[in-house]
Amino acid sequence: MALQTIEHVAAWRQTLDARRAAGQRVGLVPTMGALHAGHMSLIRRAAGDCDVVAVTDYVNPLQFGPTEDLASYPRDIERDGRIAAEAGAELLFAPPPGEMWPKPPMTSVQVSGLSEPMEGASRPGHFDGVATIVAKLLALSGPCWAYFGEKDFQQLAVIRQMVSDLSLPVAVMGCPVVRDADGLALSSRNAYLNQTERALAPNLYYALLAGKRAVEDDGETDPGAVTDAMAVSLEKHPEFGLDYAAVVDPLDLTRPVRIHGEVRLCIAARLGRARLIDNVPATPPDN
Amino acid sequence: MALQTIEHVAAWRQTLDARRAAGQRVGLVPTMGALHAGHMSLIRRAAGDCDVVAVTDYVNPLQFGPTEDLASYPRDIERDGRIAAEAGAELLFAPPPGEMWPKPPMTSVQVSGLSEPMEGASRPGHFDGVATIVAKLLALSGPCWAYFGEKDFQQLAVIRQMVSDLSLPVAVMGCPVVRDADGLALSSRNAYLNQTERALAPNLYYALLAGKRAVEDDGETDPGAVTDAMAVSLEKHPEFGLDYAAVVDPLDLTRPVRIHGEVRLCIAARLGRARLIDNVPATPPDN
Repeated sequence: MALQTIEHVAAWRQTLDARRAAGQRVGLVPTMGALHAGHMSLIRRAAGDCDVVAVTDYVNPLQFGPTEDLASYPRDIERDGRIAAEAGAELLFAPPPGEMWPKPPMTSVQVSGLSEPMEGASRPGHFDGVATIVAKLLALSGPCWAYFGEKDFQQLAVIRQMVSDLSLPVAVMGCPVVRDADGLALSSRNAYLNQTERALAPNLYYALLAGKRAVEDDGETDPGAVTDAMAVSLEKHPEFGLDYAAVVDPLDLTRPVRIHGEVRLCIAARLGRARLIDNVPATPPDN
Repeated sequence: MALQTIEHVAAWRQTLDARRAAGQRVGLVPTMGALHAGHMSLIRRAAGDCDVVAVTDYVNPLQFGPTEDLASYPRDIERDGRIAAEAGAELLFAPPPGEMWPKPPMTSVQVSGLSEPMEGASRPGHFDGVATIVAKLLALSGPCWAYFGEKDFQQLAVIRQMVSDLSLPVAVMGCPVVRDADGLALSSRNAYLNQTERALAPNLYYALLAGKRAVEDDGETDPGAVTDAMAVSLEKHPEFGLDYAAVVDPLDLTRPVRIHGEVRLCIAARLGRARLIDNVPATPPDN
């Protein structure tokens, strides 16, 4: 399908307004570019649900900390456009520098509670940057179905809460993690891994599976024992620097005292230059 | 004109979407009810500019501090409806308790810089509450022209900045202060004044005029001398408790070192149970 690339906010809004006026449902896939098969699965899902798929491609500086990888984050709009079109997108929003914020924004959207544990604790201000850019992208894209990957599980929870609290005219669609054949969750940041690190990287997923087995096969109900199982599994590979391993409620991200219902196992670790995150659901055997 | 009152978010959005689909421009007047001639001037202005005027009537708890007048704030939806209709509104959004936030919101919209001086310093968290509710009202009302009074001058600046930073599909229209014959700016909180206080209340405006004369007639360029003139004027009436008198840039609300162009003179004071605010423009004679 031919892809139309749009650079300016006003033209983007007009284009999507015209589609809606023609009775089309807009599927929005917000991305930071560096598209991979995970993004393609979001676009394909949106193409199945909606009449037109609109992908946004913008590396949002607000969600990077001062010591993070904003400068090195991979950018290739032309390649992104080919991948988006192949997956079924018709429209690509690729604002040049200065288009989104001619002056630094004073406005910040914050989601308390959900933003504080895990990624929020490791990356201060990260979710304020995420909530702010997503609020803006949703405002300038208008009413739509918006697709986000469960790979960024906490981000998805933050966005759902924001959309609900602010009554944004958006249906938030969470989509499953897409993995390579060896289990590594797809991520633009996997590009930072050298060959040795790439071979080790699936052990992050295996650590999650160790936790999942503890819950589902062993019937472990103590969250501390489950996170220990995840940490012990990852410690077999000293190349990883574990950031956190957590058992959380899948809706509000609180830490249960006992596991008695579906939980989400979440993990983050450094490996070489990359910081990787992943998560899996786990359900105790009596559920 | 017959007024339609709507209580639910979904019905409000659908009603305004239908008007827009029919090609109508929506004029939105967000209020906390207790409508007076100031609100009527906003509604009349909107009726002149737009095809349909939609008034929201919701006392937003987020913008009140713990020791402020949330419980006593005047509420009378039926009276508001009559006044809104008389001024030319067709639609009134009056959400019952629990409709706006079934659970306390976790999401907060903050506008740094503009929110910090004057009202922000006196009322911590006030503008976060304002920005959050206005973001929500604009999201659930959809693309529109939105009318706000200059009486709340800092609020207007905060909202303009938020709309720009978040690319909300809204034209923000600021409208002049409406005053009683003796000069008192109309405010729902004037209802808190007893007869003696009401007679004294215009002295707040006269203090602004003293500052305006200093700038415009005396050519005073030192902001400190202008605020002194305002304070000295108000001190003649010890019933007032001056909160602040300020000379600010009309766009970014910063305090100029010297006055050389239009400025805004702002004042806030307590009088009896009420806390009153007001402002006027002032332009030096060489402009």
